[in-house]
Amino acid sequence: MVLEVYGHGGDIWTASAQYGVEPERFIDFSANINPLGPPPGLLDRLREALPIVTAYPDPGHRALIAKLADKLGREEAGFVVGNGAAENMALALLAAGPKKVGIVEPCFSEYEALSRQFGAEVVSVRGTEERAFRAEPEAVQRLIGACDLVFIGQPNNPNGVQYSREELRSFAEAGERNGSYVIIDEAFIDFIPESGRRSLLDELERYRRLILVRSMTKFYAIPGLRLGYAVAHPQTARAMRDKQVTWSVNALALLAGEICLEAGSAFEEATISLVAEQRERLRQGLEQLGCLTWPGEANFLLVRLPEGKTAAGVQAALGARGILVRSCAMYKGLSDRDIRVAVKDESACLRLLQEMKDVLVLTGGETE
Amino acid sequence: MVLEVYGHGGDIWTASAQYGVEPERFIDFSANINPLGPPPGLLDRLREALPIVTAYPDPGHRALIAKLADKLGREEAGFVVGNGAAENMALALLAAGPKKVGIVEPCFSEYEALSRQFGAEVVSVRGTEERAFRAEPEAVQRLIGACDLVFIGQPNNPNGVQYSREELRSFAEAGERNGSYVIIDEAFIDFIPESGRRSLLDELERYRRLILVRSMTKFYAIPGLRLGYAVAHPQTARAMRDKQVTWSVNALALLAGEICLEAGSAFEEATISLVAEQRERLRQGLEQLGCLTWPGEANFLLVRLPEGKTAAGVQAALGARGILVRSCAMYKGLSDRDIRVAVKDESACLRLLQEMKDVLVLTGGETE
Repeated sequence: MVLEVYGHGGDIWTASAQYGVEPERFIDFSANINPLGPPPGLLDRLREALPIVTAYPDPGHRALIAKLADKLGREEAGFVVGNGAAENMALALLAAGPKKVGIVEPCFSEYEALSRQFGAEVVSVRGTEERAFRAEPEAVQRLIGACDLVFIGQPNNPNGVQYSREELRSFAEAGERNGSYVIIDEAFIDFIPESGRRSLLDELERYRRLILVRSMTKFYAIPGLRLGYAVAHPQTARAMRDKQVTWSVNALALLAGEICLEAGSAFEEATISLVAEQRERLRQGLEQLGCLTWPGEANFLLVRLPEGKTAAGVQAALGARGILVRSCAMYKGLSDRDIRVAVKDESACLRLLQEMKDVLVLTGGETE
Repeated sequence: MVLEVYGHGGDIWTASAQYGVEPERFIDFSANINPLGPPPGLLDRLREALPIVTAYPDPGHRALIAKLADKLGREEAGFVVGNGAAENMALALLAAGPKKVGIVEPCFSEYEALSRQFGAEVVSVRGTEERAFRAEPEAVQRLIGACDLVFIGQPNNPNGVQYSREELRSFAEAGERNGSYVIIDEAFIDFIPESGRRSLLDELERYRRLILVRSMTKFYAIPGLRLGYAVAHPQTARAMRDKQVTWSVNALALLAGEICLEAGSAFEEATISLVAEQRERLRQGLEQLGCLTWPGEANFLLVRLPEGKTAAGVQAALGARGILVRSCAMYKGLSDRDIRVAVKDESACLRLLQEMKDVLVLTGGETE
């Protein structure tokens, strides 16, 4: 039985039922959350503010939007605050009402699931192994021409790589030319040093059909609260907000978002440097164990297990040891030897490498 | 300028900007929340449990559904847990995909807003003043025959009245006969003594197209957390869950729901008796001031102001005094003299009656 019964990592409840380990005792490499946890003081401030849950949240998200606009240097009218990045994707789909959606595989499974859920046909192109599973830019442009809406991960999940700014511009231009929406999923872009981020954030006014989707739950380690946002042309943002169910973003998420934006650069820098360091440790350690990795820039790594091992077998063996990893066997374009591991702190990474060694070298990795 | 810029009560942020009163200083009669606040100990338990926000919520809502099924004596497969009752309504619309939606005016504005948002045409019948703004049952049955989906409030917002069980059965049967979904919005039914509640909960297996929607944010006073659920035939519930965006219900809401269901009957009984008592106090007091009221059974009252007064004028005059009430001028079938006031605790109700007296009798009630 696969662990991803809901199509995602981080499902400690299913894992608990399968492996007989208490949910909170897992070291969870299957969800890509900031290893530093939430910004210092965030949980205390939420504890103090808890009585706000007895009033309705602001349906206009006004205070948070003002802070986002200020931080990103964009006008407020271009923002949509949502219940996680996932709701922003759903709003883009509801606003655009596409008949045909394009995706670039391998990619986050919600692109296809949400598109089908809202009645669209889904077509895809594949990334190539040589390009670390990026697709050829011409293939993406043709996909945009053939679809009403296309999702692109930047950096892409599960491989963690980015397209260049020139490639992104060519995608946005293809969108304008063909009347197709281009959704750039930047859920993990905050984990990349600012100088290395490739985003069209500052060029949004040129592209009416370009939508950037960002998450605040991963970088700020509050996935249980649900918070994300989209930035787009004001007219596009408005069309998305018009599809939102009133109060879909809860009051604590809104407040947490405000506090996180005030956390300042020390937390951001500490996160980015920890992730870079430990990602390198994981990469080297896993390669020494005979795994293959790709040069992802995000807070997770796509890993191909040595020949003869399977993602399912290794996942189960690690699960029984209290370690969760994401099987990538169900990602189209990947193989049944592929897993994804989150980058966590040093002790967790060392533990993963140790357990992985036991599982791969000592037990042979097959438990099913 | 109206206060209901988002179409609802409880918007203390807009009120604050309009009346120059700090948001948290209002006594808010515009949102219908349990005057007792959350069950004793709830906020403390959420404070303790706050670190759960660093993990993803259970996308299957398994623990809460088990408790709901147990409490209501229904099988788990019939439940849908949502981000407030509003998300459950949206899921019903997305699952049914109606071309034409029927509503019974006056009613909660989200029925029409959500239906249009998801592309449906909306038609309506009107309640009659003699029936306390209930519609004639034959008119509702005809509406169901003419639509793909119909919303009915039980008790209805803003008038607080219920249909009889026989009327409800005739609606559910009309739904089955015509292949139309009948959504019974029971968001406020918990405020009615159990013996007085008219629900088809125990007859759901007979009606595949009947969906009961309930809120946990009003009775348990956690509107900022967002929590509601639907109960339906397992097949219908499944179709709704299939339309849900993953993780739309946050981790604290799920936990709060579990704790609330454990709160037991003492909290429920205290709420119900307080509401009955203070509703009667408000009704008598307002009638003494020359207002007209209708015999609502919920935790709010529909009130017609004396001739010569307007909802807008009284709302503004009360707002400047730190008291929020809901104008009902925009409800079709009601008049520009109609307001809705929540039932709150004794001191709040006395304050409302005092301020209302000042506004109606002393100032004349017109400030715009």
